[in-house]
Amino acid sequence: MAGEHLSREIAEQPEVLARLLNAGEPRIREIAAGLAKRWGDVAFMVIAARGTSDNAARYAQYLFGASNRLSVALATPSLFTLYESPPDLSRSFTVGISQSGASPDIVAPVKEARRQGAPTLAITNEPDSPLALAADFVLPLNAGSERSVAATKTYTAQLLAMAMLSASLARPEEADRRWRELSMVPRWVAETVGLAGQIGQQAERFRYLDRLVTSGRGYCYGTAFEAALKLKETCYLLAEPHASADFLHGPVAIIESGFPALLVAPTGAAFPDMVAFARPLGERGAELLVVSDSDEALGLARTPLRLPAGVPEWLAPIPAIVPCQLLALSLARVKGLDPDRPRGLSKVTLTY
Amino acid sequence: MAGEHLSREIAEQPEVLARLLNAGEPRIREIAAGLAKRWGDVAFMVIAARGTSDNAARYAQYLFGASNRLSVALATPSLFTLYESPPDLSRSFTVGISQSGASPDIVAPVKEARRQGAPTLAITNEPDSPLALAADFVLPLNAGSERSVAATKTYTAQLLAMAMLSASLARPEEADRRWRELSMVPRWVAETVGLAGQIGQQAERFRYLDRLVTSGRGYCYGTAFEAALKLKETCYLLAEPHASADFLHGPVAIIESGFPALLVAPTGAAFPDMVAFARPLGERGAELLVVSDSDEALGLARTPLRLPAGVPEWLAPIPAIVPCQLLALSLARVKGLDPDRPRGLSKVTLTY
Repeated sequence: MAGEHLSREIAEQPEVLARLLNAGEPRIREIAAGLAKRWGDVAFMVIAARGTSDNAARYAQYLFGASNRLSVALATPSLFTLYESPPDLSRSFTVGISQSGASPDIVAPVKEARRQGAPTLAITNEPDSPLALAADFVLPLNAGSERSVAATKTYTAQLLAMAMLSASLARPEEADRRWRELSMVPRWVAETVGLAGQIGQQAERFRYLDRLVTSGRGYCYGTAFEAALKLKETCYLLAEPHASADFLHGPVAIIESGFPALLVAPTGAAFPDMVAFARPLGERGAELLVVSDSDEALGLARTPLRLPAGVPEWLAPIPAIVPCQLLALSLARVKGLDPDRPRGLSKVTLTY
Repeated sequence: MAGEHLSREIAEQPEVLARLLNAGEPRIREIAAGLAKRWGDVAFMVIAARGTSDNAARYAQYLFGASNRLSVALATPSLFTLYESPPDLSRSFTVGISQSGASPDIVAPVKEARRQGAPTLAITNEPDSPLALAADFVLPLNAGSERSVAATKTYTAQLLAMAMLSASLARPEEADRRWRELSMVPRWVAETVGLAGQIGQQAERFRYLDRLVTSGRGYCYGTAFEAALKLKETCYLLAEPHASADFLHGPVAIIESGFPALLVAPTGAAFPDMVAFARPLGERGAELLVVSDSDEALGLARTPLRLPAGVPEWLAPIPAIVPCQLLALSLARVKGLDPDRPRGLSKVTLTY
């Protein structure tokens, strides 16, 4: 059956995440202790990443911002490679995120930050990669080899790794609660993986879909980007991600009757904003797909995609991407495409 | 004629930019002197902006990164408004960019940074706006009232204002050359405004266009975003912006025969990368629109959009957006739309 690798890798996620939680915890606590010794000068965080990993970095902006009071800048790799004019990173904590750890433009900022004396971390599935060798600290994802071009298990593992690191850097009075919540992640993801059959049916409706917009806010801003990317990679849709607030500053003009919009709207601080955004879209006749644990939000959707109850907002992006991965897989099959072999893409992309 | 405001405001740009250069220079030098006194603690820069202004902020990432060695983080406004959990900005230089200066989620980060003791700057067309009142320093754009919903002259004025600020903060041995180059900007923009008639004809071909991708890299990364936004606002296209490098990490799969791609590729350090990206797109049968001063790049295009010769790369984004603005205007007219009155948009958007 088409999409065999992708299907298996989506299903593997609960196991991959459980392994990272258990085996990764001592490593992450060790990294946090090592960082603590060098924390005095750190004024902000920089993350270098591309593609799927860049969507993980978008999550990190909210995660480390809200929980650890760190401003997170996404690196502009071309400053290091094309312009050879790197910014001052001496007071940064610089992190490179890459499944393969091979792309030169992700290695370059990490190398430069380390040269400038800043603490650096590599989050990668390949602990012997150039990225891993460049950084002071390495957090291996241990997700097993990923054969589908569309990354799934390495993405959720990247999110979990950063959530664990954030918990390790949190104030002690918060840390316990956060680790308790983290321990639930594999179960929540297993619940959403269980939607595979239902989403297989829901995807039928979209046989002739060729475009959609996706939207999320706050913690799930990156989820909207990652959902769009999966649909682009596997189904060749023109899929455009937005923050709901940015959307109202312009692109809302493109929405017309029947235009599809996928909204990621778990309950939490960003929820009222997402619902307030969904209503006018609905009134313009948009066709809504909604990923949420809220009956209210799901009730606005033609295609509801239900999340488990009780997930705290800071961890919602991990289960919330799973229905989107399943939709990308199912829709590719409905369209007669093989999502394991997208046109023009290879697993490891070397960019400069 | 439809698009009267938009057309006039595009044409006004040389005059608006000349005024900002002349009247704004003493003000910017004063701001730079004020900042210099408080520069000791500054480790990084934060910019809060949305929509068109956010595209100006993308330019700032390369500008201040390459020329002033500053890492630039784009603010995540919801951390300040929805989550009420602002990051530590005490060692930042925080800038808010907004035409109207009215949007609460742009005011909030500036207010908070100032409360934490960091130097703050407002770049706005409304010197009495809430944003201007919130900041230590105010740089008024003085662009005159902008009546078209699609921002044009305030966007190029924002770019120029930041380029002037960057020159003021540069090392003295560089500053003279940079101010000399800045003085040429109104002339270059006047040259591109002169393409209006030609672009009016070129737009005919795209009467039934409903989607395209845009791409740029480095300094012109934000230009690709702004070009896409103008086409979305005025023509309801699904227009997706990308860095060329990100594109190769996924979305390249969507390109098929006849798929239109608008590439912003002025000569400079990012140019070889853009040409190397254009070739495979052309081989897949993409229909290329290219904004460039290079015969080589223009030769790859079905629709060449020529930039003036001799523009240094750091200033190229200012003239480079103009053909894209003219294309948005002309294409809206070709499609029988009124670009001054896009569906569902108003000039001032209040988001939280």
